Amino acid sequence: MSPFTGSATRTPDWEHLRVERADGVATVTLARPEKLNALTFGAYADLRDLLAELSRERAVRALVLAGEGRGFCSGGDVDEIIGATLSMDTAQLLDFNRMTGQVVRAVRECPFPVIAAVHGVAAGAGAVLALAADFRVADPTARFAFLFTRVGLSGGDMGAAYLLPRVVGLGHATRLLMLGEPVRAPEAERIGLISELVEEGRADEAAGALARRLADGPALAYAQTKTLLTAELDMPLAAAVEMDASTQALLMNGQDYAEFHAAFTEKRPPKWQGR
Amino acid sequence: MSPFTGSATRTPDWEHLRVERADGVATVTLARPEKLNALTFGAYADLRDLLAELSRERAVRALVLAGEGRGFCSGGDVDEIIGATLSMDTAQLLDFNRMTGQVVRAVRECPFPVIAAVHGVAAGAGAVLALAADFRVADPTARFAFLFTRVGLSGGDMGAAYLLPRVVGLGHATRLLMLGEPVRAPEAERIGLISELVEEGRADEAAGALARRLADGPALAYAQTKTLLTAELDMPLAAAVEMDASTQALLMNGQDYAEFHAAFTEKRPPKWQGR
Amino acid sequence: MSPFTGSATRTPDWEHLRVERADGVATVTLARPEKLNALTFGAYADLRDLLAELSRERAVRALVLAGEGRGFCSGGDVDEIIGATLSMDTAQLLDFNRMTGQVVRAVRECPFPVIAAVHGVAAGAGAVLALAADFRVADPTARFAFLFTRVGLSGGDMGAAYLLPRVVGLGHATRLLMLGEPVRAPEAERIGLISELVEEGRADEAAGALARRLADGPALAYAQTKTLLTAELDMPLAAAVEMDASTQALLMNGQDYAEFHAAFTEKRPPKWQGR
Repeated sequence: MSPFTGSATRTPDWEHLRVERADGVATVTLARPEKLNALTFGAYADLRDLLAELSRERAVRALVLAGEGRGFCSGGDVDEIIGATLSMDTAQLLDFNRMTGQVVRAVRECPFPVIAAVHGVAAGAGAVLALAADFRVADPTARFAFLFTRVGLSGGDMGAAYLLPRVVGLGHATRLLMLGEPVRAPEAERIGLISELVEEGRADEAAGALARRLADGPALAYAQTKTLLTAELDMPLAAAVEMDASTQALLMNGQDYAEFHAAFTEKRPPKWQGR
Repeated sequence: MSPFTGSATRTPDWEHLRVERADGVATVTLARPEKLNALTFGAYADLRDLLAELSRERAVRALVLAGEGRGFCSGGDVDEIIGATLSMDTAQLLDFNRMTGQVVRAVRECPFPVIAAVHGVAAGAGAVLALAADFRVADPTARFAFLFTRVGLSGGDMGAAYLLPRVVGLGHATRLLMLGEPVRAPEAERIGLISELVEEGRADEAAGALARRLADGPALAYAQTKTLLTAELDMPLAAAVEMDASTQALLMNGQDYAEFHAAFTEKRPPKWQGR
Repeated sequence: MSPFTGSATRTPDWEHLRVERADGVATVTLARPEKLNALTFGAYADLRDLLAELSRERAVRALVLAGEGRGFCSGGDVDEIIGATLSMDTAQLLDFNRMTGQVVRAVRECPFPVIAAVHGVAAGAGAVLALAADFRVADPTARFAFLFTRVGLSGGDMGAAYLLPRVVGLGHATRLLMLGEPVRAPEAERIGLISELVEEGRADEAAGALARRLADGPALAYAQTKTLLTAELDMPLAAAVEMDASTQALLMNGQDYAEFHAAFTEKRPPKWQGR
């Protein structure tokens, strides 16, 4: 728990998500299986607020984002979101779209790795949530579809036009965002959209195992690796090299670096503190 | 047709290109087959001016760029361009190279998707024209060659050193631009340089079909997707997320988004207006 | 030899590297095979200083970086570097990490292509050295491992969190830098980390042949191609297009461009001057 807590209280109950915590690993499950985990205003707001809370608390070292039932997430709910936005005014529309973008920024900027466990459909906002994660652990049923243009909107939603070219290259990204066609697991793996392809039905389990490994390891080193990967996409080489240098100098004063050397010298496995 | 037209007249005749228009789709053909569609000063100038005119008019919703005869485009004509530049002074050389760069900027920045239909050779400036397009629909005879160093020039020509690493990654891009070796269709597909590989002899037809689909669909959504993909390559994450949010808020006030919802509710296909 | 030399003398002897020069090609060999070419403080300093000296002299047109013995380079020496840094103060730690970053900047910014000849292990700083090169010529025994987190440090070391996403995409880069797992030759080739895969035991020879070809060719064109590839990763499209235009205008005044045209007209191979 961070010493830097003030008056803010922890949210007692996340109504629109299932949130479990176990020894440094948070598992967040989109749990509306009868609607293929379609997102509602409440679910977006909870994702935004939960990630902010977990980032402040510093008790979480890895997070799994999963979907219950037949698929990962079918995106924004057609009735509850598309229908509702049709009667919103300009300020409300901007507010809604900024909220969804804040979720993606929170996934990229939170101080722990995020692992999306993907099976079945990951469509629309669901595809972007998976894209924003650090790892996409997927099984062969996974199907990504950035289908924004299919509802008359821009393929650049929640940062997708920024992120996807940096993951799969501009050519593939243009095709996927412009046409909104589904990308099945073999193609997704070929173009670099899947981090780890596992056996059918094993995505949640494999994502959990990866989260456990990250939480039990040199977690501050992992967190800084994520921070640098996120920040250096937007930095020139000279600044990135300088940022790496000061980060390493910092971590060389840390406990885990000394522990590595001690363990190596004593020919035993290191006991990581994550600090 | 855009209401924002002033005194400028439409160019009555494009002497160095074949330009056809049909219901929102423009087809621009490099039509100098006896020279493998080698580019001349006039062809570059016409491409620059045509794209500017079409961008102002707003009557075109998708553009196909194709080559007549045995290949797509063999690049700048050795006699008419290389020979002529040898007697130019510094100001003229800069002017020429800025013009060719303006063609690439126009392809990236025009408000409609550009589809290159590639068969046979796409060399030098021809390879960069294809690279700048949003889609590269190619048949198995396609052969890309960024052969600038082979004439003693830099592989960074017309933005190639910016675009190619963002399409295929820095490693492949360095190899292709430095050595100028041909990339045949299987490798081009493997590294992400081809958007859609079609049967031999079918590139023009498939590119036309894709253009038709884009022009008949939610064309403003496609145009904004292209704009965001182009702009967000040069933006940090936070700004990109904000740009996506304001774009979606804008399009949620548009006709096509409402039409999607109406069609979905009435269980019929949407009738897109492209607005 | 550059006319722009002042009072600085050439280093008479590189104690921590083997340096050979032959007609425009420098071959730098990490030659501590009994330690898998583990890097010492002296080796980092020599790499930094050698690249600066070669860049000033302008006598070298291509450089091969190779490793003697069973592998390319196992990274920073556990005893001589990790052990020593544990008793350094903050200023010394920053100084060390800045030095290693300067090596990577020198590899990216020196005015000649750098070819890494990789066989066996390329781990830690060794993997980043290979990554920073313009070409990675590797044989099937090559094994890359960005194992910084395994010693409790950030995966972003010496610019790796900047470079790797631009070579293999953000998804693969996150996996490789976060987990530090080895990437064997087939995967490295598939994701774009290897430029040229050659037969076992032939990496040095093939890298030498490529260096010879680059040094004997239009070397100024190659040097400018490298400069543009490096610079345009950090530039927006409009600026990149302008930089390409002025570079080509410059080279069109050069000897090699005129020579290409003369040779083409006379139907003979060009005699490149590299100017």
